[in-house]
Parts: sequence; structure tokens; C-alpha cells
Amino acid sequence: MLKVPDHQVAGHQAGDGKLGPLIDDSGHFYKPLQNDGRGSHELAFYTSFSADTRIPDHIRKFFPVFYGTRHLEASDGSGLYPHLALEDTVSSRINPSVLDAKIGSRTWYPQAAEDYIIKCLKKDRETTSLELGFRISGLQVYGNKETGFWKPDKKCVLNFSIEDTRLALRKFVSSNPSTGSDIKPDCSFASTVYGGPAGILAQLLELKSWFEEQTIFHFYSCSVLMVYEKESILQGRNSGAEIKLVDFAHVIEGKGVIDHNFLGGLCSLIKLISDIVTSSA
Amino acid sequence: MLKVPDHQVAGHQAGDGKLGPLIDDSGHFYKPLQNDGRGSHELAFYTSFSADTRIPDHIRKFFPVFYGTRHLEASDGSGLYPHLALEDTVSSRINPSVLDAKIGSRTWYPQAAEDYIIKCLKKDRETTSLELGFRISGLQVYGNKETGFWKPDKKCVLNFSIEDTRLALRKFVSSNPSTGSDIKPDCSFASTVYGGPAGILAQLLELKSWFEEQTIFHFYSCSVLMVYEKESILQGRNSGAEIKLVDFAHVIEGKGVIDHNFLGGLCSLIKLISDIVTSSA
Repeated sequence: MLKVPDHQVAGHQAGDGKLGPLIDDSGHFYKPLQNDGRGSHELAFYTSFSADTRIPDHIRKFFPVFYGTRHLEASDGSGLYPHLALEDTVSSRINPSVLDAKIGSRTWYPQAAEDYIIKCLKKDRETTSLELGFRISGLQVYGNKETGFWKPDKKCVLNFSIEDTRLALRKFVSSNPSTGSDIKPDCSFASTVYGGPAGILAQLLELKSWFEEQTIFHFYSCSVLMVYEKESILQGRNSGAEIKLVDFAHVIEGKGVIDHNFLGGLCSLIKLISDIVTSSA
Repeated sequence: MLKVPDHQVAGHQAGDGKLGPLIDDSGHFYKPLQNDGRGSHELAFYTSFSADTRIPDHIRKFFPVFYGTRHLEASDGSGLYPHLALEDTVSSRINPSVLDAKIGSRTWYPQAAEDYIIKCLKKDRETTSLELGFRISGLQVYGNKETGFWKPDKKCVLNFSIEDTRLALRKFVSSNPSTGSDIKPDCSFASTVYGGPAGILAQLLELKSWFEEQTIFHFYSCSVLMVYEKESILQGRNSGAEIKLVDFAHVIEGKGVIDHNFLGGLCSLIKLISDIVTSSA
């Protein structure tokens, strides 16, 4: 039974007659292949990446597993439509807190069309991408049964300043995410979610080591998705903290050069998170 | 006695009635303060940097020592003119091989004037800056008494492709730098100049560690200068391999964010040099 995912925080969303991703009970996430070349580009990436023996397993785990393509009833009611079948890392979780950070101060690649470059550059300058090296594209943070999720709307998130971004990264690991500007986020889950040997910071550093070496792919406009389960922590279990790279419609060949644009932005995200872990230790 | 420096490979050059840097026998390098705001900007950086107690000594050594300003007879004959008095790391050396790499895929800062941004972006796209994260601005490589220096002219260097840049980094540490495209550079000094505990790679990695943490300054359009003395190696002495950061007319405050643009480009340079050390080991 196909349905619209509950915990999507960024990107095109299904529903209201719009084309968007679907999920089912099999643990798959079905992403419609966009018609404008992006879809086939992303499919080409997944196909190439899946078969590439140069990707070490400890890095491959940061990418969704690719199960091929499926023709499914599209969410906009337009009939059968090709979808990428991907591992769904979010839907099986209970009240997941999710943050999508689009990495890179530049979201356009050198060979792109001029009007696309101008559009991207404008957005990179209007958001934190240019100055911070990344921008938050969306997030939801679970509070509790009464408050539910704190999920600022898309427009609000795209207007985040550097300070707003810093604050959102603190709220993401706080028990009081949705409180107003007068109360500081408590960062009570910082050491569990961001810190520790299996925490998000350790995973980001592992990814960074690979980006210092790998010259296979350049990832433009690609996001790091961060996920964890608050209730799991409160029940004394593992936080389930996990990062995944998502959105590969603008991946190009590295041709022997490292992806300095992604690496720089990743280091900036790492520094902000590292500051939070240090200050809340 | 003021004179025009012998071993300048990039930037404005004195002579032919033009304003440019001068040196004397005191070991100082006198850089004229450019009138258009860049001069006062660079002066402000040196003043602020010199007094900043947050800069550790092992990082400070990568910056030229600043001795204040001097009013000197300008090289263009226009009379007394203010100059920055800086440590001269090149002139005292015997036949120094020098390479100037302008770091960063973006040489413009977010708050710059629109026409300046457009000019820089164009140049970043025309050179290797955008794709490689840095561009070589100039270099000279000493061959021997007969051949002297291999010093490709400015226009040629600005037209370097990624492959040309890779080749130039190999020629920089070769005994046969000026040979044609049919003979491969031998990289016979790679392990001595780039490699080893005091080599250029080790120094770049030390600088990188600082850039992963420091949020004080963002260095736009700043160069890493690499220097060594070939004859010193051939005589069994130290290579004198040294890196220095130069050109601070476009340094802005970091405001708590790392300089992801410089860091990314630095990591790209490190990767190329590291590849050369590995392949010639």
C-alpha cells in the first residue's frame, strides 16, 4: 500500500495532486524520476555508485541502498510513473527528529547552463550557503506527546541566518526545541546524539576523511540527512543517530580532483556541531 | 639601496615606471599601499593579525613578519609613497624556486561590490580556481647555471588547465623543469621538498589543521607561496622548503564560521601534492 511519507522535511512533497515521493511497508522510499534530466541523472549516479568497487563499505553505509527503478502509480494521479526504489532510513523510526543540510557554498557545477547558474548563485547568496558553506533545507524535532514536532515551514527555514542555523542545530538536540527566543535550547541530547563514538559528529568526521581523498564524484546540491530518535534515548536505548547523503541529481565526475566545495561545507557543519558538543559537555 | 626584487612571480611588478614592491639589504620587502582601499585593508589586516594573541606561534610562522609602514621613494618615480615593510622570505635565497598558488574556488567575499564580484567570478571560471579550488598565479623553477629559471609568463600561467597545474606542481620539484611536453618531469626533489617531516606537505597539513578550527579571518584571494633552494639540496644541505601566506587585501572577519572556501582549496592543493609524493616515492 503506497502512501506519502510522514517525516519528509525537504524537497518536493506528494499530496494535493503533486508529484512526490511515496513509501510502502517494505522499507522502500520511492522517489519519482524528475522529467527535466535530473531524474535520469540521479538514476545514473545510483547505478554507477552501486557498481563502483572503489567505495569502501564504511562509506557506502552513508548512502541509501538502491533497489533499482519501479513503475508505480504516481502521487499526482497521472498514472504509472518511474520511481527510484531506495532504502527508507526514516519511516521505520518512531517520532524521528530529522535535519536536512544541503552541503556546499556553491550548489551549481561549472558546466551547468548559464540560467541555472544564475538561479543557484542567487539562492546561495540569499541563504547561508555562500557564507556558511551549507544551508538547512528543512528539519523536524520531536518534543513530546503534547507538543509533537517542531517543524518550521520551508520559507522560514530558507530565511535562516547564520545565527538561526546555529540555533537550529542546538534545538535539534534539545528537549525544548519549540520554545520561544527567550528560552535557550537546553542541548540535553547533544552528547548522546552529536557526541560519542557512534554519534553524528563521529560519522561526519568519517565522511570527511573520505572526502579528503576521493576524486571520483563531486556532489553538488547534495544533502546530509541527520536522524535520531529521542524517545529511544529517554528509554535508555541507543539514540539511533545516523547520517545519510541524499539527492544526487547534480553529481558530476571528479576527474582526479577532490570535491573541495562539499568538503569545505562539511568542515563548516562539523565545526558548528563540534562547538555545540564542546559547550554542552 | 632600494631595488626591484629578483624573484617575484606574481602580483604588480615595479619597473618601467610602474608602482611595485621594492627590497633592500635589510631583508625587508616593501609593498606599496594600493590607493583603492586594498592597501589600507591589507595594512589593517597586518596590524590586527600582529596584535592577535589567538594566533599560535606554529601558525604565525606561516605569515610574513610585519615591520610597520615606511614612506619610500616609489618605484614609479612619483615621489614618497607609503609601503608595508614585510619580512622578505625570498630575496636572501640563492636561486630560489618559487610558486604562488591563490587559494579558494571563490576569490570574492559576500559583501563585495557587484561589479567586483562579477569580475572575480569570471576569472575564477576562466582559470582553475572554480574547478580545482585554487589557481597558480606564477612560478619560477631553477634548472641549472646554463638553463637558469623556467618561468612561464603570466598569461601562460593564467591559462593553465587542471592538467597544466598538475604538471607545474611536478615540474616545480624536478631537475628538468623546462623540458618540452615529450619528456616527463622527473620529480627528483619531490621527496625532499614536498615530503618529509619539514617538507611543504607537512607544513600545508599544519596550516590545514588551523583552518579546520580558526573562525577569526576569512582569506579571500590570498596565496600560499612555496619556496625552496635546489642547489642547497644538491650540496647535501636542507632544501629550505617553506610556505608563506601572502596578499591580505581581501581578508574579512570570520565571525565564528570557518573559512570553508580557503580550507577546501587548501585540501585540493594538498591532495595534488600528496599524489606527487606518493607516486614518486
